[in-house]
Amino acid sequence: MKFFNQVDLEAMEQRFRTTFINSIAGFKSLNLVGTVDESGKTNLAIFNSIFHVGANPPYLGMVVRPPEVDRHTLQNILDTKVYTLNHVNPQILEASHQTSARYPKEVSEFSSCGLTPKFTQQIIAPYVEESHVKIGLKLVEKIDVKVNRTVIIIGEIIEIIIDEKAIQQDGFVDLQMLESITVSGLDAYYKTILLNRFSYAKP
Amino acid sequence: MKFFNQVDLEAMEQRFRTTFINSIAGFKSLNLVGTVDESGKTNLAIFNSIFHVGANPPYLGMVVRPPEVDRHTLQNILDTKVYTLNHVNPQILEASHQTSARYPKEVSEFSSCGLTPKFTQQIIAPYVEESHVKIGLKLVEKIDVKVNRTVIIIGEIIEIIIDEKAIQQDGFVDLQMLESITVSGLDAYYKTILLNRFSYAKP
Repeated sequence: MKFFNQVDLEAMEQRFRTTFINSIAGFKSLNLVGTVDESGKTNLAIFNSIFHVGANPPYLGMVVRPPEVDRHTLQNILDTKVYTLNHVNPQILEASHQTSARYPKEVSEFSSCGLTPKFTQQIIAPYVEESHVKIGLKLVEKIDVKVNRTVIIIGEIIEIIIDEKAIQQDGFVDLQMLESITVSGLDAYYKTILLNRFSYAKP
Repeated sequence: MKFFNQVDLEAMEQRFRTTFINSIAGFKSLNLVGTVDESGKTNLAIFNSIFHVGANPPYLGMVVRPPEVDRHTLQNILDTKVYTLNHVNPQILEASHQTSARYPKEVSEFSSCGLTPKFTQQIIAPYVEESHVKIGLKLVEKIDVKVNRTVIIIGEIIEIIIDEKAIQQDGFVDLQMLESITVSGLDAYYKTILLNRFSYAKP
């Protein structure tokens, strides 16, 4: 076993450390975030930083890098107060990864990456038609992380679009059936195989 | 495809909604969080809410439920300022799930669940000997989420213990080789199979 202390971590070459630290925390959720600017122009970006914040009311969190880096998605959410999350499946994996390229603001990632925007009555942000799990959110809280200027966006779920056959009797959603992909690091994509589902643990 | 709007979500039976919403955001990282109280008593709890906050310096976030629910882990972190994250693998999956049972404060989950505490010079919180990826953190920021009283803990990585053969030349850590498990919902555990690792996307 190899031990890395703070001095070892600081001594790493910067890109090596970025890749290393990004893969160390474990597998992450993978979502395309759909937004729209005030003029109605659509934007789509891949995020691996979505996390559960609460079920009742239903809240999800998302880490966004400082405003000067990820400005399109963050600015659109702050301006319009809504956004969508769309799970990635193998059929759209390559197109989804391609949304991480730095397109200029006037270019929509939907057309350049070959994905189809889908709109509902509930929300002006675009969903990804090809996605098997679509979640619409409204912004409820913006948190500025002091230690490194990242931003945490908390959204309330206002719409979910999903194939009903994947919802089990107790509410559990079978993401393996829906082919949702998980990610490690910045660019390694995985499918999953269920090992076990346990019952509620008692002492 | 089934559409759920806010009224549909609110109408769900509470446990159904908890299970539904917990599985909707995608696959999550799975870690055992090791802490110690001010008298040196160890505590271990399973968390699926760890997320990446930054690589340089290396920061990880963790969502903790309101203080009255998850008080042991949170209180220990606030009191001692340190904690460990330990990836779960198939050999310790059942024991790891068992740490979610509500043991009284005087009982250590290590002995009751059959896991081995391991200590280093860097940090007073215990690692899980049987885990293949061990991360030591110090508390750097506590955020109170206003909308639902959950707490977000931001920690700086001060130590990593890992099998060197899983670290690739560019810093990428092969979590599939290390058998790290991912989780969906509260209790469904999955192994992963690599689909693809893509290069940096360009427009």
